[in-house]
Amino acid sequence: MSQDQTQTIYQGKIVSLEVQEGKWEVVRHAHAVAILALRNGKMLCVRQLRRAVGAHTLEVPAGLIDDGETPEDAANRELSEETNLQGDMTLLTRFYSSPGFCDELLYVFLAENLRDAPGTPDEDEDLTIEWHDPHDVLSALRDGRELGSASTIAATLFAVQHLQQSQEQRRA
Amino acid sequence: MSQDQTQTIYQGKIVSLEVQEGKWEVVRHAHAVAILALRNGKMLCVRQLRRAVGAHTLEVPAGLIDDGETPEDAANRELSEETNLQGDMTLLTRFYSSPGFCDELLYVFLAENLRDAPGTPDEDEDLTIEWHDPHDVLSALRDGRELGSASTIAATLFAVQHLQQSQEQRRA
Repeated sequence: MSQDQTQTIYQGKIVSLEVQEGKWEVVRHAHAVAILALRNGKMLCVRQLRRAVGAHTLEVPAGLIDDGETPEDAANRELSEETNLQGDMTLLTRFYSSPGFCDELLYVFLAENLRDAPGTPDEDEDLTIEWHDPHDVLSALRDGRELGSASTIAATLFAVQHLQQSQEQRRA
Repeated sequence: MSQDQTQTIYQGKIVSLEVQEGKWEVVRHAHAVAILALRNGKMLCVRQLRRAVGAHTLEVPAGLIDDGETPEDAANRELSEETNLQGDMTLLTRFYSSPGFCDELLYVFLAENLRDAPGTPDEDEDLTIEWHDPHDVLSALRDGRELGSASTIAATLFAVQHLQQSQEQRRA
């Protein structure tokens, strides 16, 4: 496909929009990270107002990867900014949030050996920190009692799996 | 917030873009469904070119909810269109694909009691049907050997959980 068949509609701060070959609408968006942090069988969640959906969501800590940052660096920065914690990061998975129209790639990390870290949320963010049992989060998301994100459901399912494996190891 | 503080930049076929209060970029997108279908320990996947990410992805069957359709109706229609199968649908979860900038809500269903159904993919779709072990899909997504979507990782984690539970029930 030649470049001149792509029409750029908008170039903004976090998204840009183009139309390819007069029909394919494509949203360009920075890649992002999300972090699963577990302590005493509970997962670290943030509650915040999401203007795009007009509601407060319950999510795991997450944010965009800045220019020049590795996904792991971004995960460490976001975790400390949003929750004043840091940890050792292991990649759990990566996926496109919605590849039918958008190129945003999400990396989900497990943070282990949690310890205190300095940090302040972005001025646009108004976050509440909460710790929840992953099984409760899973059923609240399914029933619509809580609204979550793609990385939240992925992190929650990994958390359930992780706790199950720990339980089996203790039994063995 | 009054209506005149929202500026509509673009209204397209599948996305529209607005800027709220001169700074919040919001993409509006139809809600969507994805389907986990399991048979003999393998999950139903579709391989397809996704122009927005410039690559072939490995995903579970998925698609947009049409006007007037329930999520369950859409799941049945998409499953039969893409794979010529139908099944009994149970909601596994729902989540926003990327609530930081977009209002797309995804519903993931489990399809059980699979049976043949007539169906033809949309003319824009060029799909290959594949059945995979969910554990293989999980590691291929993590390692970047396969590219997937948010609903694919959610469906895959549910599949692993489902197979584990079936195994435990057989043991008990």
